[in-house]
Amino acid sequence: MNAEDVKGFFASRESLDMEQYLVLDYYLETVGEIETALAHFCSEQSTAQWKRVDVDEDFRPVHAARVIGLDVLGELEQLSYPVKHSESGKIHACRVTIAHPHCNFGPKLPNLLTAVCGEGTFFTPGVPVVKLMDIQFPDSYLAEFAGPKFGIEGLRDVLNAHNRPIFFGVVKPNIGLSPEEFAEIAYQSWLGGLDIAKDDEMLADVTWSSIDERSAFLGKARRKAEAETGDPKVYLANITDEVDSLIDKHDIAVRNGANALLINALPVGLSAVRMLSDYTQVPLIGHFPFIAAFSRMEKFGIHSKVMTKLQRLAGLDAIIMPGFGGRMMTPEEEVLENVEECTKPMGHIKPSLPVPGGSDSALTLQTVYEKVGSVDFGFVPGRGIFGHPMGPKAGAQSIRQAWEAIEQGIPLETYGESHPELQAMIDQAAKKQD
Amino acid sequence: MNAEDVKGFFASRESLDMEQYLVLDYYLETVGEIETALAHFCSEQSTAQWKRVDVDEDFRPVHAARVIGLDVLGELEQLSYPVKHSESGKIHACRVTIAHPHCNFGPKLPNLLTAVCGEGTFFTPGVPVVKLMDIQFPDSYLAEFAGPKFGIEGLRDVLNAHNRPIFFGVVKPNIGLSPEEFAEIAYQSWLGGLDIAKDDEMLADVTWSSIDERSAFLGKARRKAEAETGDPKVYLANITDEVDSLIDKHDIAVRNGANALLINALPVGLSAVRMLSDYTQVPLIGHFPFIAAFSRMEKFGIHSKVMTKLQRLAGLDAIIMPGFGGRMMTPEEEVLENVEECTKPMGHIKPSLPVPGGSDSALTLQTVYEKVGSVDFGFVPGRGIFGHPMGPKAGAQSIRQAWEAIEQGIPLETYGESHPELQAMIDQAAKKQD
Repeated sequence: MNAEDVKGFFASRESLDMEQYLVLDYYLETVGEIETALAHFCSEQSTAQWKRVDVDEDFRPVHAARVIGLDVLGELEQLSYPVKHSESGKIHACRVTIAHPHCNFGPKLPNLLTAVCGEGTFFTPGVPVVKLMDIQFPDSYLAEFAGPKFGIEGLRDVLNAHNRPIFFGVVKPNIGLSPEEFAEIAYQSWLGGLDIAKDDEMLADVTWSSIDERSAFLGKARRKAEAETGDPKVYLANITDEVDSLIDKHDIAVRNGANALLINALPVGLSAVRMLSDYTQVPLIGHFPFIAAFSRMEKFGIHSKVMTKLQRLAGLDAIIMPGFGGRMMTPEEEVLENVEECTKPMGHIKPSLPVPGGSDSALTLQTVYEKVGSVDFGFVPGRGIFGHPMGPKAGAQSIRQAWEAIEQGIPLETYGESHPELQAMIDQAAKKQD
Repeated sequence: MNAEDVKGFFASRESLDMEQYLVLDYYLETVGEIETALAHFCSEQSTAQWKRVDVDEDFRPVHAARVIGLDVLGELEQLSYPVKHSESGKIHACRVTIAHPHCNFGPKLPNLLTAVCGEGTFFTPGVPVVKLMDIQFPDSYLAEFAGPKFGIEGLRDVLNAHNRPIFFGVVKPNIGLSPEEFAEIAYQSWLGGLDIAKDDEMLADVTWSSIDERSAFLGKARRKAEAETGDPKVYLANITDEVDSLIDKHDIAVRNGANALLINALPVGLSAVRMLSDYTQVPLIGHFPFIAAFSRMEKFGIHSKVMTKLQRLAGLDAIIMPGFGGRMMTPEEEVLENVEECTKPMGHIKPSLPVPGGSDSALTLQTVYEKVGSVDFGFVPGRGIFGHPMGPKAGAQSIRQAWEAIEQGIPLETYGESHPELQAMIDQAAKKQD
């Protein structure tokens, strides 16, 4: 590219009709001349050859991605990660804002992913290290997506649960129980005060626990628990499966009494989530397998909040995500960003319920609540309920007791004195520390 | 976990019925006691709580993933990448082989991905850094997958192209041409000797070039080129789209004369690829967007060859992948591993055609051929054909001339003297070096 060519890939935000563009925020490390590398970066992700040989034309005014913001963070002695590459010259760390014309691909998730984290992003000469940090959509693009059908308020209405967190529990043992045994455990946890008993993300439709049989037992158990407690309850069935089976599995599970569905978003693909969200009449909740593989490195890959945003756009009513603390290996700032992405204004798209999780129990509820800073979250223990020394009903009770203590401003230790289920968790933790 | 618990997650290969297990090979870095970290690693990806409270049972014999091989590579002063985590102690780099019981999830790609690169893999206490390096399937598991319908031989039969590479070309300009202009360029390239003219992975069904209109023009142009050259030709249409539109897009494109289909495997999801492969009666060819985001780091994420293997399992007849040289930022060994994964014995699954690509032209053909070490590959230039100074027909001719020279053992420079289209590429390269 010559200097004139390079110019075609830079523009001011003011000079563009921003309704026609997505705004992409990348961290990247350039090798060699910065502007040339960035022009290539835009070219490779949009119109890589912008004219025919011997034809006087230029596709860039309509189809080129353009740099609209550049912050050179500094020169680096070496790339942050060793990556084989073809260029030579000085290395610079940059934050770059790019306007990418969405007419190149349209309001379709697979084509969007191809454009913003495909070959153009990861195989540009002079840009061996890159992380997609954020993505923003104009309202005209968002208008093409339905988003969550229920959202936070819809989910609260289903459960008649307001002004408090939503209490999930991952039935454990996650793998190995018969459908009948599984249903009994879920039933106990509902009696103890759980809102939503869920399949583990690992447990779907398997020979030893088919979705048909499991959802039949769980549907029955749910109705029984609702009758006994007087509260609405949810059985969250994991229908993650091959995409051409998802609608079938949906129908079987819902017919049998599953009243919300779990889907592993990246393993089935975000587009399959969108399909399912368009189809279903029950809340759809996403789980996070696979995302860490491309989001954990600080300066390479795709930021997890981009995935949270896309999962919301695809229509998930709640998004289970790695939560707080060292256990889930995610910096606190990143967890908070993901929580915020669920509820930030996003055109007409409803907020999703953030469900930051990972080895939670009655003893971590206060911390999660304080960090989230609102009651609009889901709390999702597994062994913290189903490994409770007094059993799953007591496990669920301990969670509700912890919330009562928080609401009333009473220290857990004090509240535990009159609540043996909570006290048992306090004692268990003390024993482990010995 | 106590010492006895840990033992339940180790086994010898000989003690297991290996038809019941996938074999997973991980690189990982442990913090603290190695065996404990590995037991957690197995537990988290399989049965995370293997018994109910107060029930005398143990799900591990059937459902636990088990370490069947361990090679401690050495102690590290620090993790290879900074990752927030919860454990403390010495750090060790390990290669670990794990037997994972496939009855936990069954022969379903989304559930397989959840099990082997989901929460268990990336969120195990004491294992903050991990890369899934390889995966092997027993024949009984492979038997549940159809694999490619055509494979290399089927694709050769369609094209009547034997004993030589298959010559692809990515029509450029990739973004911006009208369907009619696009068809004219593809037509020229077919006349010049191209086997397969393809849509760019970025170009699918868009307002300014609908798949319906484009495939109609291209289908017509293809038949005309076939009549004029007497050779079969392929128009490879990119039908990447939302998964619930894929079958429609397939039908439209094929009805109009597209006789092979391109799909961006990870953006639509591997499961959608499998669905499409089951459905289609034309060859299905995959492209690689998104894979680099989780495969480029040497010691974190998922090795690209795992994705090559899964794409083959999902039924792709040809797999476009990052090719040789610094331009595509992939170590040569990794490119070769990916090429080999396409054709390695894999139960009854047919071989896929490897298509290592990236800024190729007549001048890189010999190198690619020598590195692959066989004629069983696809060669896929873009600008090397469509940016040829004498136009796309000459561009395609230059590729075929380069192959003639290679076949006859004549140096390109010599062969160029009597072949102006090849000579033009040689001259262009010489000019760039000045």
